[in-house]
Amino acid sequence: MDIPQYKTALIVGAGEGISASLARLLAKQNIRVALAARNIRKLDALCREIPAKAFTCDATNADDVAKLFGEVSGEVGVPDVVVYNASQRARGSFTELVPADVARSIAVSAFGGFLVAQQALQLMLPNRHGAILFTGASASIKGFAQSAPFAMGKFALRGLAQSLAREFAPQGIHIAHFVIDGGIRSLVRAEPADHPDSMLDPDAIAINYWNVLQQPRNAWSSELEIRPWVERF
Amino acid sequence: MDIPQYKTALIVGAGEGISASLARLLAKQNIRVALAARNIRKLDALCREIPAKAFTCDATNADDVAKLFGEVSGEVGVPDVVVYNASQRARGSFTELVPADVARSIAVSAFGGFLVAQQALQLMLPNRHGAILFTGASASIKGFAQSAPFAMGKFALRGLAQSLAREFAPQGIHIAHFVIDGGIRSLVRAEPADHPDSMLDPDAIAINYWNVLQQPRNAWSSELEIRPWVERF
Amino acid sequence: MDIPQYKTALIVGAGEGISASLARLLAKQNIRVALAARNIRKLDALCREIPAKAFTCDATNADDVAKLFGEVSGEVGVPDVVVYNASQRARGSFTELVPADVARSIAVSAFGGFLVAQQALQLMLPNRHGAILFTGASASIKGFAQSAPFAMGKFALRGLAQSLAREFAPQGIHIAHFVIDGGIRSLVRAEPADHPDSMLDPDAIAINYWNVLQQPRNAWSSELEIRPWVERF
Amino acid sequence: MDIPQYKTALIVGAGEGISASLARLLAKQNIRVALAARNIRKLDALCREIPAKAFTCDATNADDVAKLFGEVSGEVGVPDVVVYNASQRARGSFTELVPADVARSIAVSAFGGFLVAQQALQLMLPNRHGAILFTGASASIKGFAQSAPFAMGKFALRGLAQSLAREFAPQGIHIAHFVIDGGIRSLVRAEPADHPDSMLDPDAIAINYWNVLQQPRNAWSSELEIRPWVERF
Repeated sequence: MDIPQYKTALIVGAGEGISASLARLLAKQNIRVALAARNIRKLDALCREIPAKAFTCDATNADDVAKLFGEVSGEVGVPDVVVYNASQRARGSFTELVPADVARSIAVSAFGGFLVAQQALQLMLPNRHGAILFTGASASIKGFAQSAPFAMGKFALRGLAQSLAREFAPQGIHIAHFVIDGGIRSLVRAEPADHPDSMLDPDAIAINYWNVLQQPRNAWSSELEIRPWVERF
Repeated sequence: MDIPQYKTALIVGAGEGISASLARLLAKQNIRVALAARNIRKLDALCREIPAKAFTCDATNADDVAKLFGEVSGEVGVPDVVVYNASQRARGSFTELVPADVARSIAVSAFGGFLVAQQALQLMLPNRHGAILFTGASASIKGFAQSAPFAMGKFALRGLAQSLAREFAPQGIHIAHFVIDGGIRSLVRAEPADHPDSMLDPDAIAINYWNVLQQPRNAWSSELEIRPWVERF
Repeated sequence: MDIPQYKTALIVGAGEGISASLARLLAKQNIRVALAARNIRKLDALCREIPAKAFTCDATNADDVAKLFGEVSGEVGVPDVVVYNASQRARGSFTELVPADVARSIAVSAFGGFLVAQQALQLMLPNRHGAILFTGASASIKGFAQSAPFAMGKFALRGLAQSLAREFAPQGIHIAHFVIDGGIRSLVRAEPADHPDSMLDPDAIAINYWNVLQQPRNAWSSELEIRPWVERF
Repeated sequence: MDIPQYKTALIVGAGEGISASLARLLAKQNIRVALAARNIRKLDALCREIPAKAFTCDATNADDVAKLFGEVSGEVGVPDVVVYNASQRARGSFTELVPADVARSIAVSAFGGFLVAQQALQLMLPNRHGAILFTGASASIKGFAQSAPFAMGKFALRGLAQSLAREFAPQGIHIAHFVIDGGIRSLVRAEPADHPDSMLDPDAIAINYWNVLQQPRNAWSSELEIRPWVERF
């Protein structure tokens, strides 16, 4: 069994939560970590702790994304693990949604995933080696009421992931989509004391991402769903 | 059984094929028909035949879409059937796709559907009456290799349709999504002589749209897939 | 467009509800109707009304099913429309379910469907003409808590329908599976007065079966879901 | 993060392949292993190697399954991990399938899973601790032509797994279903030399089962699909 060996990870849409947990876990596995976000101030402490390097990038802007991959390749290493973790909701009653907000929601949740995957594949395909992971949600597989823009973005991201898996897995690139079904606990969003473990733990999610990365190519998953034991589905 | 009675239909993304067949069928049922497309020249003959009225509209432009619903309401009638039939592909090798083409593909295939549905619902909700139909494809439920932009747009449109169905069906608006799985025959795309009925017939598809429109509200479909007998799936 | 012409229908698992409505509708279209059930006493009035002929059959018994098709072919006509409408639940807490009841539930809901489809196809394939319709439920696509035996039976029936559709549609046999998602109103199960149209109407369901039967072979559906406007899904 | 601690595993439908790999892996984790099969002769070498204890059991027989859980509890330990790995196909042209073979196929692939899950839950529920894993296949989610009996059994098993997950996950029992999509290499079924890693490796599959068992309850998967990089899906 050949366990894939990865050297450099780039996490786009980094913040607290899944991406921070994953960054810590990858670093412990001696993988260099680069983080990208629109505002990297919030990543300062994390970058010092890991250590990791942060890059400013609007993932919906093609030039920004191209520049990001150039900078990461030069300053950290050519990324062979790329995680797309950005998403954005547009909230409110459907008939009162502002079209520009909806467009932005789709752009961040899905189009940015395309831009990032395209740059990643240009670097990975020559080596026939690499992995691209996409963070989905329950909205990726079920369009809920009062949540159309998020469903549009997350459905689109899953369509992208499926299409890439069918095209590039046979070329040696591992493509995986994670259906994160439930709230994620954090410093600002604690779980109710009387419902223990009712929220997802970001460290536990990160382990699942890692386990998928460790799959040998003759036993790849392209989709994995994860939810708390008490979550309805 | 209360069969819904519709008076005015607006078909967005009209051209030859499904929309022309549907326009003819609706007109025969004494429903007034408005057609919208970016270029309405191509609709001249169809408009005379039916007769229908055509409106120029870029469905990805919020102002255009708002203007469209105002004009149609004034000149034809307040639409209580709205069909979103527009879509666009971006072709080519994934790593060579032009980002602007991909953005455009998602905008036409999905964001325009949002804009049109929003305008439609603003008119339909006060009456708790109306139907919005979305044209999907096999790419709506399966992301194929070498077809990521189309999968993104069509998955997103399905996410929109599901979300709207869950939110607005209980308010009396019939939302339905059609998975058109197969090539559609046309003047410029004939089916192989040795494979009879191997391509979808647009008139047959139109009948399915009509049958869904005729469903009483206690037996609604929100998704229907249609394919030729010999199509692999 | 070639609308299929059917002559003789056999509905297995006939009783009140969908099958009675469908029997009436088919008869009005000048299609001869045969009904099969374990206990045909309950079908007396319906048979007189339509008129139709009823046959005693335990659909889970291979000999019974073979005998049924022989009798129907001889006394009514060779069936070119076959509807499998039988199902059975095993109720109770999962840990207290009686294994024989669960086995029976799977046998009635799914294995009987196999037996009936096999007999039907032996008659239909030589003519490359016929339709087999399966009645599913929300449990066909989602396994609910406290309902494992029904989920097992209905999932299995859907697996059968998919397999048959992929194998026999290209040989001219229309296979369709209906996801009936909601309660069906009846004499003994009225809908709440303050929730109009909150239950499925069997006549409306029957129209949908008929519409699928009328599809020309270049525009076939192999699955259709139907639910009341207010049903959650 | 509380990683679940398991003590005794029972693998039903044990043979070469997934179950042997999983038995070895569990034993290395200091979990006692019991194996059950209709014919345990073939397990002799494996039992000595691990070491594990083998029990004769026809999983489709309720009395056998009850006796199995009694014996395993007495001789090995009360199982808190139970794996259902049995399945059976009925081969041949659909119209020539022998009904008894099809019934047997459904019984082994699905009804046995019910019997085993029921006994397992009776032991697990009082402790609100345990895991039940089901081995599925591509046929679990797609009914293929010329494979109706296998689709029926595997669909039914997935319906069972979903139903149990919705009912018993909130009671602390981890239920997971694995979609094994591809051929598994073995001593008697080598992969083509010119298609490296084109078949699933049973050891790699076993690691995935183990990873799911290690998930803390706030990040459970109830379904995971695994396939070789080059497998079409």
